[in-house]
Amino acid sequence: MDFQKELQEKVREVEEILGKYLPREEGFQKSLLEAMNYSFLAGGKRLRPLLMLECYRLFGGSGEIVEPFMAAQEMIHTYSLVHDDLPAMDNDLYRRGKKTTHAVYGEAMAILAGDGLLNFAFETACKAFSMGGLSDREAGRVGGALTILAKKAGIYGMIGGQAVDVEAEKRKLRLDGEKLLFIHEHKTAALIQSAMMIGAHLAGADEEAVRELEKAGYAIGIAFQIQDDILDVTSTLEELGKPVGSDERNDKLTYVSVYGLEKSKQDVERLSREALDILGNRRERNVFLEELVMSLITRRK
Amino acid sequence: MDFQKELQEKVREVEEILGKYLPREEGFQKSLLEAMNYSFLAGGKRLRPLLMLECYRLFGGSGEIVEPFMAAQEMIHTYSLVHDDLPAMDNDLYRRGKKTTHAVYGEAMAILAGDGLLNFAFETACKAFSMGGLSDREAGRVGGALTILAKKAGIYGMIGGQAVDVEAEKRKLRLDGEKLLFIHEHKTAALIQSAMMIGAHLAGADEEAVRELEKAGYAIGIAFQIQDDILDVTSTLEELGKPVGSDERNDKLTYVSVYGLEKSKQDVERLSREALDILGNRRERNVFLEELVMSLITRRK
Repeated sequence: MDFQKELQEKVREVEEILGKYLPREEGFQKSLLEAMNYSFLAGGKRLRPLLMLECYRLFGGSGEIVEPFMAAQEMIHTYSLVHDDLPAMDNDLYRRGKKTTHAVYGEAMAILAGDGLLNFAFETACKAFSMGGLSDREAGRVGGALTILAKKAGIYGMIGGQAVDVEAEKRKLRLDGEKLLFIHEHKTAALIQSAMMIGAHLAGADEEAVRELEKAGYAIGIAFQIQDDILDVTSTLEELGKPVGSDERNDKLTYVSVYGLEKSKQDVERLSREALDILGNRRERNVFLEELVMSLITRRK
Repeated sequence: MDFQKELQEKVREVEEILGKYLPREEGFQKSLLEAMNYSFLAGGKRLRPLLMLECYRLFGGSGEIVEPFMAAQEMIHTYSLVHDDLPAMDNDLYRRGKKTTHAVYGEAMAILAGDGLLNFAFETACKAFSMGGLSDREAGRVGGALTILAKKAGIYGMIGGQAVDVEAEKRKLRLDGEKLLFIHEHKTAALIQSAMMIGAHLAGADEEAVRELEKAGYAIGIAFQIQDDILDVTSTLEELGKPVGSDERNDKLTYVSVYGLEKSKQDVERLSREALDILGNRRERNVFLEELVMSLITRRK
């Protein structure tokens, strides 16, 4: 089947799963639940839950235990955007053409909606403990998956990267290459790693295989981010949909400005190969997953 | 031993346990970790971890599995204060005589420190999965304890109560008794319930006993809050340390203004009796725990 068509169908499947885990908008705290669902349903490629599901399948997973974790992973991604858009942070009123959560519900409710999504992510993932028909072994894996989720989303993962980025922006610090890579690794790659590792772990992959996926997730996250920086320099306004060269004008340090365009392109090439080598290095293959990874890294906009 | 002296010693013991689980202030994200630790160490009675530990002991618990949960519970309490103090929320520059987190570290870092504490709470609690010397049964209980933690802290627990409170304040809504009780139950009682239930569950208490502690936690939380409202009306400035009658002047609806002073006092009486009946209704007793509960409810400031 054509990749784009398959992608559309898979995303639809993921959306259906995610929908089952959203809170019902009722009770005294209705506004809070509305603000959470508004944020969650404001679009997005559902990349992380899709990667989780496909890695779960790559290792032979076929049950429903992955579902609450898919929802949890996307809730964490969503809360990070809600808090990132706040006036005290990036102060964005629009995201993907829609009003941001604080623009619609006010700042206080947006803070609480973000907190709610983060907490509900763990509450949702915990539902896996009480799913029917789980083997003891599967039940045991839920704890491991929770540990990965918390670690990669937290102060040694995404929040850590976010904090370094925010501090550099507020203090107008000049980043060096090492710090820039730290930010990309933690802000961008950590949740991709988490999604892939949890999928594999829940399907019963051994520790070494999970560590390999951690490396693949790192390569994909960093390559994705470098490609972003490259596109900002090379593409036309029409292709990209945002002003070209905006990073440069904003005096923002990017991978391209530190290492140059040529090395940046080579690194994307090298990192993609690393990721695809890891994914293709098994008797069973998941061709869709490999195509998905390729499409992320070699995208033109 | 004298209760006050015993309390001091127990709090010191709790502080020591909590200290083991704080992040080390190092790495690129050092400022974030400093802001988190500043918030965590800015005082507080450590009531929730203390209640957890004593309920754990009431049911015969004697291991270390409760420790990461004590730290997690206090991290959640702390993050809720950090976010509550933000300019968009209560806009408080001081708490317990110390500058609030955003007053010291700025608003963006305070938002991230709150997120960090909430996420790190779950990361810390997950450490119980990999503690040495756990029996399979104990390991199994960790999942249950995580579920309680997430639920009581979340959108159907503390955050839910917080959202209703914030919305009522922002929109200057007149609360009725039912909504006021919802706020107290979720904003105040939920984390007390959580602490007590987790302590019991980790020690191996059966479901019914955990449900009883949920009731006791409810009674303690609500009685504590009503006592707060009573003190605001009846005590002198010297006793309370804050302007007397400040709730009335702020036109804030309280339990006393809805139900009157007499019924409020009777309800504190009734709720305390309920809580103490539940705690004393076992062959084994924990006299210190009962005294602690009494001291919370009958306090004069």
